[in-house]
Amino acid sequence: MPKTMRVRRDAGDAADKVIPLRTDGMRALGDQWTEVARRERLRILREATGVTLAQLSEPLVDAAQLRGQIENFVGVMRVPVGVAGPLTVCGKMASGLFYVPLATTEGTLVLAVTRGAEAISAAGGAAVAVAESSVTRAPLFVFATQSDASNARRWIAQRVARVCEVAEATTRHGRLRSIEPIQYGRRLVLEFAYWTGDAAGQNMVTFATDAACRWLRQRAPFNQAEFFTIESNCSHDKKMAALNASRRRGRRVEAEVTIPRSVVRAVLKAEPEAMVRVAREGLYACVVSGAVGAQAQFANVLTALLLATGQDVATVAECGTGLTILELDGDEDLYASVTIPNLIVGSVGGGSRLPCQREGLELLGCAGCNGSQKLAEIVGAAVLAGELALVASLATNTFAQAHAAYGRPT
Amino acid sequence: MPKTMRVRRDAGDAADKVIPLRTDGMRALGDQWTEVARRERLRILREATGVTLAQLSEPLVDAAQLRGQIENFVGVMRVPVGVAGPLTVCGKMASGLFYVPLATTEGTLVLAVTRGAEAISAAGGAAVAVAESSVTRAPLFVFATQSDASNARRWIAQRVARVCEVAEATTRHGRLRSIEPIQYGRRLVLEFAYWTGDAAGQNMVTFATDAACRWLRQRAPFNQAEFFTIESNCSHDKKMAALNASRRRGRRVEAEVTIPRSVVRAVLKAEPEAMVRVAREGLYACVVSGAVGAQAQFANVLTALLLATGQDVATVAECGTGLTILELDGDEDLYASVTIPNLIVGSVGGGSRLPCQREGLELLGCAGCNGSQKLAEIVGAAVLAGELALVASLATNTFAQAHAAYGRPT
Amino acid sequence: MPKTMRVRRDAGDAADKVIPLRTDGMRALGDQWTEVARRERLRILREATGVTLAQLSEPLVDAAQLRGQIENFVGVMRVPVGVAGPLTVCGKMASGLFYVPLATTEGTLVLAVTRGAEAISAAGGAAVAVAESSVTRAPLFVFATQSDASNARRWIAQRVARVCEVAEATTRHGRLRSIEPIQYGRRLVLEFAYWTGDAAGQNMVTFATDAACRWLRQRAPFNQAEFFTIESNCSHDKKMAALNASRRRGRRVEAEVTIPRSVVRAVLKAEPEAMVRVAREGLYACVVSGAVGAQAQFANVLTALLLATGQDVATVAECGTGLTILELDGDEDLYASVTIPNLIVGSVGGGSRLPCQREGLELLGCAGCNGSQKLAEIVGAAVLAGELALVASLATNTFAQAHAAYGRPT
Amino acid sequence: MPKTMRVRRDAGDAADKVIPLRTDGMRALGDQWTEVARRERLRILREATGVTLAQLSEPLVDAAQLRGQIENFVGVMRVPVGVAGPLTVCGKMASGLFYVPLATTEGTLVLAVTRGAEAISAAGGAAVAVAESSVTRAPLFVFATQSDASNARRWIAQRVARVCEVAEATTRHGRLRSIEPIQYGRRLVLEFAYWTGDAAGQNMVTFATDAACRWLRQRAPFNQAEFFTIESNCSHDKKMAALNASRRRGRRVEAEVTIPRSVVRAVLKAEPEAMVRVAREGLYACVVSGAVGAQAQFANVLTALLLATGQDVATVAECGTGLTILELDGDEDLYASVTIPNLIVGSVGGGSRLPCQREGLELLGCAGCNGSQKLAEIVGAAVLAGELALVASLATNTFAQAHAAYGRPT
Repeated sequence: MPKTMRVRRDAGDAADKVIPLRTDGMRALGDQWTEVARRERLRILREATGVTLAQLSEPLVDAAQLRGQIENFVGVMRVPVGVAGPLTVCGKMASGLFYVPLATTEGTLVLAVTRGAEAISAAGGAAVAVAESSVTRAPLFVFATQSDASNARRWIAQRVARVCEVAEATTRHGRLRSIEPIQYGRRLVLEFAYWTGDAAGQNMVTFATDAACRWLRQRAPFNQAEFFTIESNCSHDKKMAALNASRRRGRRVEAEVTIPRSVVRAVLKAEPEAMVRVAREGLYACVVSGAVGAQAQFANVLTALLLATGQDVATVAECGTGLTILELDGDEDLYASVTIPNLIVGSVGGGSRLPCQREGLELLGCAGCNGSQKLAEIVGAAVLAGELALVASLATNTFAQAHAAYGRPT
Repeated sequence: MPKTMRVRRDAGDAADKVIPLRTDGMRALGDQWTEVARRERLRILREATGVTLAQLSEPLVDAAQLRGQIENFVGVMRVPVGVAGPLTVCGKMASGLFYVPLATTEGTLVLAVTRGAEAISAAGGAAVAVAESSVTRAPLFVFATQSDASNARRWIAQRVARVCEVAEATTRHGRLRSIEPIQYGRRLVLEFAYWTGDAAGQNMVTFATDAACRWLRQRAPFNQAEFFTIESNCSHDKKMAALNASRRRGRRVEAEVTIPRSVVRAVLKAEPEAMVRVAREGLYACVVSGAVGAQAQFANVLTALLLATGQDVATVAECGTGLTILELDGDEDLYASVTIPNLIVGSVGGGSRLPCQREGLELLGCAGCNGSQKLAEIVGAAVLAGELALVASLATNTFAQAHAAYGRPT
Repeated sequence: MPKTMRVRRDAGDAADKVIPLRTDGMRALGDQWTEVARRERLRILREATGVTLAQLSEPLVDAAQLRGQIENFVGVMRVPVGVAGPLTVCGKMASGLFYVPLATTEGTLVLAVTRGAEAISAAGGAAVAVAESSVTRAPLFVFATQSDASNARRWIAQRVARVCEVAEATTRHGRLRSIEPIQYGRRLVLEFAYWTGDAAGQNMVTFATDAACRWLRQRAPFNQAEFFTIESNCSHDKKMAALNASRRRGRRVEAEVTIPRSVVRAVLKAEPEAMVRVAREGLYACVVSGAVGAQAQFANVLTALLLATGQDVATVAECGTGLTILELDGDEDLYASVTIPNLIVGSVGGGSRLPCQREGLELLGCAGCNGSQKLAEIVGAAVLAGELALVASLATNTFAQAHAAYGRPT
Repeated sequence: MPKTMRVRRDAGDAADKVIPLRTDGMRALGDQWTEVARRERLRILREATGVTLAQLSEPLVDAAQLRGQIENFVGVMRVPVGVAGPLTVCGKMASGLFYVPLATTEGTLVLAVTRGAEAISAAGGAAVAVAESSVTRAPLFVFATQSDASNARRWIAQRVARVCEVAEATTRHGRLRSIEPIQYGRRLVLEFAYWTGDAAGQNMVTFATDAACRWLRQRAPFNQAEFFTIESNCSHDKKMAALNASRRRGRRVEAEVTIPRSVVRAVLKAEPEAMVRVAREGLYACVVSGAVGAQAQFANVLTALLLATGQDVATVAECGTGLTILELDGDEDLYASVTIPNLIVGSVGGGSRLPCQREGLELLGCAGCNGSQKLAEIVGAAVLAGELALVASLATNTFAQAHAAYGRPT
């Protein structure tokens, strides 16, 4: 039984009793972000809590590889990976059969995506289209009056090219697509939207926008702003929003497939009409209960697939919904489509550089340059597979049974 | 460079060319879910893609431990873990100092939570309150007329005790709290809400509700229902909803702290007024841009902490927002609170049984029975720490610099 | 051309130049709220603006009848009324044929509701069910800590009967149904929900809740509250909310009808399949574009009907959405239903006492006691009629033509 | 007591028993839409219901004036009008003092706007800015595949000028601003946005878009569309949407004022700090309870003012929310602003041509050409006045008392 150090509510007192894992110490190590520091942290943790951390305390890679990805590093979390598929994808970049790695502890998920993939593949594959990335950062300036804010809005509208130069000077791959002003009263939000190349780009857009804002704030009328912040909350970075179903942040992904009745029956064990009915009922329920978007299990598939490919899983808070459509085509076939409005993925930088994560990308042929769109296409097809499988299990009333057979014991 | 097998759009053809990772095969193995099957899958993957999967292909644990958590198992994803803290929590179950494991590849996150934790701890700790869990499953019955649906609603209202018996017979730990009817026209949704003990309980509530529905569907008037599905989409299981800010699914968590100005200055390097201003501006921006909830980075902290403790990370799609309040107390101190309306965590079952994940729980003293509420309390305090740190970095205009120093290179 | 008095931005100056329509003057008149005051106001308006107000300046009724409904009274707005129907309603209170008055200047609206009514009537009428009214007022108390707020929540939970007595002492007809606490951090909202009899009840619930809060605030722990307001904004009084599609404020109204194909063809000039398709497409569009609810023209019908029956039309901001379902029954008939989640109507008090408005209610047999539920039932059927007509015009692609023939010239 | 004709549910039978108010009869009258028809309708109504309709049955104006505004005309609803103000507006078109007509039966509303107006005027007036109108219609085309939909999207992108010609040929005043494609799967919505001059423009945009769609549908690839409807529901015409707080449909209106503490005290009887607090608490409550926008009583003021100026009041379902900001300026003054994101008003056509309604416009100097922007500016200032007054009454805890003194008896 682990021993947690109890303290009185007077924490000044408590602070003396523990050896802090000071980040200051970490800083002092400078380039020495090394095994020494990691072991010292583990020693402190073991002393403080009595937990051995035998499994978790595995060294991962050399210091350089972890740089910029984590602080106070102590070890690794090992998440099981299953492979779903093969899944036939007919995209611009991803074309062919793919084995999709899913890192999850949710029983039945890999099975479900595999079943959906089988149906999709038997129908010739999922057609997928992905729009160019558009990642945003939305600084806020507050002026003395709305008239001042309007002036600033007009001022920058005439200097977009110059601002663009300043922003793009900070990045090799990012390109500023647009600056959209959102004014409310004396407040002016400038939504900077970037094409981020093969990177997820969340830091890229921060640095570029920061540079642009520094430039702006040295000049009238922006130097008159009474308040400034680099992020207003208008970018909806990792935030739920009703808008998440309709706007694009990152890449908008569309996947569709038409599955013959024979395949629906043979693979999904369901009738197309029954699946269409379940999806239609789901739409009514989403509307009547105030859901954002209408879909079955985007979040399950996205979480597992993003985790298995070194992506920032917290983005599920913004990409984890969209629209799933199921309908009959010509009274015989099942047409299914998914729209993921704002998917943020990258094939370079960040988590993609770690060993396992890179292998996850490699398994999909998406590691490195030119891999991000391909990855987005595969994600679209995999999400479609997940929708088909879950709707089929609901349509055949086998949802509970499947989880009883393959899900976690309770 | 990995080799992806290209196929023509004619997938019938393609299907002959690949060795499928058939789940049927897996089933045939029965209890033999073993290393043999895993190696065979790896062999197929290597052959099909040319990727060696040297890192990813690590065996994890013995078969029994993985049962119910994944299918088509091939190896593990290793996610780096950093430890934030110490964080002083003043809850009912969690009381004292905690070192918080965060599995992430987002640079600055551990640093940020640590800084927030330092401020919280120096102020005596975060007071946290957690409401009992209430996990839902919401079957739908469609009748011939709205009058029939109303009759069914009245019928079950008089037999709640009997339905409860049937549902609870499927579970040792789950308790049915309530059945709330939602009727729209001839459609009747019954929202079953359960107390799930120390388990996350998503499967538990499915099995119990399935049993209750089987019982109902054998009896008039429910046997008259023209359509039935075990999940209407009204439960918002892993779904974004405007309601997510106001209702409870899982546990509702409230954390608060009052931090003296001297601590705000010394630790967060900011003035309370500046932080209060940033938070206020964030509220306006959330409202004007249609966000659900208003907060800074719930999703970042939740994703990393749920991942490090064996939770179902896909739930971030429903718990990843809430309300953060910052205000001045007595013109001197900074009061901060977070409300996480619907957190789903468990300390037994599922991912919590895996080796690393269990150690993550143990580090917090939350493994096993009676750990789930304690875990929820620590989550609340950690989320509060993340909010404080991010708001402080925005208030001092050091957000971009911090990410440049510690964030991922682009 | 009317003459508006121009002023410099220096309003102190401007204030001297106009004869103000002081409400103080009105107060001084006390019971003398009379024709004298009205004429004096008109004289001032004419002098200030040069507009004669020949039509608008009509006296309406004697002073007593207007009391509590308007201040600074000068005359009337005459809004044209058309009558749609006959509409067959099969409700609990409203049963039979009704001619529905609609006050509007939107061409085609009366025509549309009439056509929908014809289809409904030919099919035997709309079945309508109305839930009891539940009108809310939601005061907020802010305490020093969340623990204090929790204590207050528990304290009142044990004194609901006493609070109920205090609240109900202020009203002859209102009954307190429930007090639901909503706590976020140290803030406690108490949502008081009332059955308001035949009155719309917005003032009734304010007075009753005010009394309850005065009582509470004289007692510990509520006298410790650091801040109080009678309305937190949580009641969503005349406010849009995603919740408006799922919760009940006022009366929840459900109306449905099954229309034989022959009637759909003869009256609505459409095929059931085409109408079902339009409705389904509308659902997708609502979801993908972030609408609250999914329906065709609730707001048009509600605005015109509420105006013609002396209701508070501003409530359209909360009742103006809901769910419309169209589907095929048995491959032949068209099933249609509407759910209006939160309709607030009254048959006594307020605007219902005015001469024209009362006649509007009388035309529907809803004036006076026991009229409010009947009115709600007729509203449900009329909204259903409007949905059927608009969807039919979209399905037959005659929407634009209808507006060209009957709509306003541009 | 009015007599409603009861019918059995068999409506075929019932239909024989009543004299229908057939719209067919109305059509037959052709240009003869006259007093004769109106009287015949009244006779039928009296016979069927026994209600004399003595007040309601007033002839309004000659036939020509009502054309395009109503069908089955029988009389008028007389709604009391009070005048609030004077209100000092500092806009581009509206500059000076205005007496604001409000048609309402909600006691205290005129008083409240008058009090707010007094505070605004004493502070020098409300600065108001209005963006050009942008009214939308959003047809939907469904193609066989998403690839076909993308092709159609690209095809029209290259022919915008030609489509614009076709659309604008239908209108003297409307101008097509943009066509924005929204694609989800094989569905393509084209959001046509128009500048509508001084007209509200809802019919104008329908006719122009209808013409454009007819043109499109005669040409490949649009003639391949498997389904078409002139309105997808994406325009949010009279619909609530989370987007309503952030997008513009119609005119976006911003109004602001800075009020010295002395004026706040003297006129609003409140302290600036107390009002700022109430507004802040309202923001938290809106966020936590899932409201769209955050404001106090937009809908009340908008309903009454739109009704008094011949506007389409049903638009309150889309314009009835937005953002109200109250804050301290320099620790002394109260800054207040409102943002109404999507106001649809017109000064020509429709209801504006009716006698009383026209006088309402004249009172504001907004009748006829060039009046619509001016009207929007006055609306902005009036809404701001309403917010100030309501927040002040909450801040001083006099909300209930005010309604007890001036509100409707219950």
